[in-house]
Amino acid sequence: MELLKKRILQDGIVIGNRILKVDSFLNHQMDINLFNEMGKEFRNRFKHKNITKILTVEASGIGIACIAAQHFDNIPVIFAKKYNATNLDKDTYEAEVYSFTKEKTYKIRVSKKYINNEDRVLIIDDFLASGSAALGLIDIVRQSGAEASGIGIVIEKSFQGGRKMIEECGVELQSLAIIDSMENNTVNFK
Amino acid sequence: MELLKKRILQDGIVIGNRILKVDSFLNHQMDINLFNEMGKEFRNRFKHKNITKILTVEASGIGIACIAAQHFDNIPVIFAKKYNATNLDKDTYEAEVYSFTKEKTYKIRVSKKYINNEDRVLIIDDFLASGSAALGLIDIVRQSGAEASGIGIVIEKSFQGGRKMIEECGVELQSLAIIDSMENNTVNFK
Repeated sequence: MELLKKRILQDGIVIGNRILKVDSFLNHQMDINLFNEMGKEFRNRFKHKNITKILTVEASGIGIACIAAQHFDNIPVIFAKKYNATNLDKDTYEAEVYSFTKEKTYKIRVSKKYINNEDRVLIIDDFLASGSAALGLIDIVRQSGAEASGIGIVIEKSFQGGRKMIEECGVELQSLAIIDSMENNTVNFK
Repeated sequence: MELLKKRILQDGIVIGNRILKVDSFLNHQMDINLFNEMGKEFRNRFKHKNITKILTVEASGIGIACIAAQHFDNIPVIFAKKYNATNLDKDTYEAEVYSFTKEKTYKIRVSKKYINNEDRVLIIDDFLASGSAALGLIDIVRQSGAEASGIGIVIEKSFQGGRKMIEECGVELQSLAIIDSMENNTVNFK
């Protein structure tokens, strides 16, 4: 997606050769015009899947998923919870995830009420690195009996191996920008 | 807002006499059609304020704020971070918040890059209870030199005192549904 790649080159900041900071438009401050263009692109790539629900994980995926849902006939969005809250059901699907940016493992949870075996679920997230969050979300979808119909990622860092993990699960992966390397503070797209 | 009140009566679950579970449409599964109606209503109530940015706090506020921004000419949305991440700037505005649902105190942070003294900021959140999160967000806006132009809340629990705290700060508060009590598992609106 050219608009997104341009924005990454313009405003992204490479730290070391593994972290890309895009907090000016993607995951701290959020550019709603850009999110709508991303939503249209996800729609174009997954329109053949008859998606019934979008699943993401807090926090950075939520805004992207909500705006994208408008391009899928306003289907419901569910976000997996990373932190226990007194208002979360006891009866949940759970999976373990390792966060690359936070450097720790935690559980993600989705109430059993909101995904069922008639759903075709599109998973959306801001980044794909090692694939741990995406695998956890696929796991949760499959526990519910629903179909994991696809994964839509905004920025894939292909050098961290997530794509292979997801393709081994047999789930279609579509990334709007794929970064092959970030050597010498320079982003190189696929 | 009648549509929202109807939905709370239809799908909200009262736990004890202080917790209202609305995770089927507001803060776990999210009803994007309802969010757009809420966004229009926020626009109607704050259109005289010439808002330049929307500020919320992760995680439940993000979807509401992103959809609402579309009714304010797609202005940027910033979400305050509750948890430290390696991709957050070191240079942040900070405030302390007590979470009613999570029963603990934590810091919220916003990078100094994304709010400045020319901004007129609308704060949006899903719930107002004791007002601690809203006060923390007002504090952050004022640290930046920006104007805290208003607070838009989806559900205010008036019996927990948040309104008084905010009005003492001199910030306009607009809540789409105001609950006066939840005795005997029944929601009573103002």
